[in-house]
Amino acid sequence: MANSKTHHVIAYGSAIVDVLAEVEDAFLLTHNIAKGVMTLIDEHRAAQLYGAFGRPKEVAGGSAANTMAGLASLGARGCFVGKTKADRLGEAFFASMKDTGVDYATPASGDGPQTACCLIAVTPDGERSMNTYLGAARELGTGDVTEAAIAAAQVLYIEGYLWDAPKAKAASLKAIDIARASGTKVAFTLSDPFLMGRYRDEFLALLPKLDILFANEEEAKALFAADDFDSVLQAVRPLNAIAALTRSEKGCVAAKGGEVHVVDAVPVARVVDTTGAGDQFAAGFLYGLTHGFDLARCGRLGSLAAAEVISHVGARPVTPLKQLAASAGLL
Amino acid sequence: MANSKTHHVIAYGSAIVDVLAEVEDAFLLTHNIAKGVMTLIDEHRAAQLYGAFGRPKEVAGGSAANTMAGLASLGARGCFVGKTKADRLGEAFFASMKDTGVDYATPASGDGPQTACCLIAVTPDGERSMNTYLGAARELGTGDVTEAAIAAAQVLYIEGYLWDAPKAKAASLKAIDIARASGTKVAFTLSDPFLMGRYRDEFLALLPKLDILFANEEEAKALFAADDFDSVLQAVRPLNAIAALTRSEKGCVAAKGGEVHVVDAVPVARVVDTTGAGDQFAAGFLYGLTHGFDLARCGRLGSLAAAEVISHVGARPVTPLKQLAASAGLL
Repeated sequence: MANSKTHHVIAYGSAIVDVLAEVEDAFLLTHNIAKGVMTLIDEHRAAQLYGAFGRPKEVAGGSAANTMAGLASLGARGCFVGKTKADRLGEAFFASMKDTGVDYATPASGDGPQTACCLIAVTPDGERSMNTYLGAARELGTGDVTEAAIAAAQVLYIEGYLWDAPKAKAASLKAIDIARASGTKVAFTLSDPFLMGRYRDEFLALLPKLDILFANEEEAKALFAADDFDSVLQAVRPLNAIAALTRSEKGCVAAKGGEVHVVDAVPVARVVDTTGAGDQFAAGFLYGLTHGFDLARCGRLGSLAAAEVISHVGARPVTPLKQLAASAGLL
Repeated sequence: MANSKTHHVIAYGSAIVDVLAEVEDAFLLTHNIAKGVMTLIDEHRAAQLYGAFGRPKEVAGGSAANTMAGLASLGARGCFVGKTKADRLGEAFFASMKDTGVDYATPASGDGPQTACCLIAVTPDGERSMNTYLGAARELGTGDVTEAAIAAAQVLYIEGYLWDAPKAKAASLKAIDIARASGTKVAFTLSDPFLMGRYRDEFLALLPKLDILFANEEEAKALFAADDFDSVLQAVRPLNAIAALTRSEKGCVAAKGGEVHVVDAVPVARVVDTTGAGDQFAAGFLYGLTHGFDLARCGRLGSLAAAEVISHVGARPVTPLKQLAASAGLL
């Protein structure tokens, strides 16, 4: 791609701080937390749970932001766009993005809802019950969309989660149109099977604008109303886009037109916490695409990044991915 | 296919009687039996082990013969070609093929080596240690190849195991040429990864003559000197043949030219004995192909047949596959 591309990927996503507490199962009952799933909550409930969490651990999260952290860990140049408020959690998010080396300059809002947080109750069995207050992340707007930054990236990456916030969705659609006019490829992740219930038709209508579609098997089945994986594969093949389909322990399938690659998962000694597996897969895959790798190698790099993140607690890499990928002969 | 095709499949394979005994692990040590693998043995050793087996159970086996039993269980019309001797085990093999409804008329030899047997020592952990005496099965010759029978079938199916017997290999090559001249499709199974060590170049040279290639992942990796499954997939796609690649719990991939299908394994409550999984997969797949099913449905039917056979001891279906397939909506 052209010299004018100073960044590999620019991502639009929710700027969320993960707030983690280790709790007993009884805590979930007392506080009416649905175990093992992600629930959207309001500000009142967020404040209530935050109080109950005692002395929680706070780390920057958010799906696309996690992906950008993974890309940075691989050595790519990335830029993140997502909304915080100028409050304590917002500052924490800014600091963490700076630590990863990702460019991040979306102005924090001075008023309105607080910085988004995901209150995660970790039970002794390792399950994570997530309560997400989207807050300021919903306030990302078309005014935050900078044409120059999109044009300067090889790929624009957008998380489907943003469709839950009307303003952020409008900003995403504007960004997509700019990307298409700027020679920037458009990548999109379906994010969560539940989103298909709310936005299936919108996502289907979006497909012709995409260059890369990320989806796990459940999300893709929901999007294409397919009963099995092969039906998904047959549905994506006529698309003009690369489909990068993740299948947990079954690995991934990457397809574009005549090309189909079936790539195994990278084995891990013990799966500790699957949070962020899809985010890191996208990081590895996008690194490969923006560095001229073929689809099979993109899939292998995605699988390697996912394997790293599921082998420990937390949604961002602990071991530098660049080092891991080099050892595996993928760089 | 034409009205002249009275049979769906004609198979060339080793006519083997499985001789099973339940033994303790110490028995393997005493009798120097390699655990969990298949070892070729001579007549002397076969007689010795047979004596040591006490009162074994005898059931007709043989890879391609098992496939034909599966096809019959699905309701297909099949014909089997394989050599026995006119001895007690030979008669048992004939009787069992008759029971399955498969046409079988290869004349038993009056002299020479005894009917082939596979002496299977089953240890308490469920492992099967196989000792195969090929005997009369090796004597299948070009004189046993009947042009009319091959021309009367939609598909000729040949097991790679026959390459271990020079006469049977010659008969197979003759059958393949007749099939190609008679509008009969040629299907071949690689049978065992170890065969690649002995016949890799011959099998590679055979590929252009095949319409359908069956292989499990290990066999296919050995054939194409591939490190991973995706490299196998890329290697088979330029072939003119349908490749039906089985991957144990990862399901199967069926590919031909532009078409690629990734089909999941059919889940089983408990894997009891994997013997015959590949044979029954081939049965289901060939049933589909000879009944006009698309490749995905062929793969699903193969997976269903394999799931049935691994859920119990023994290499042939216990539940009628036709009934199972109908319940699963595949017929």
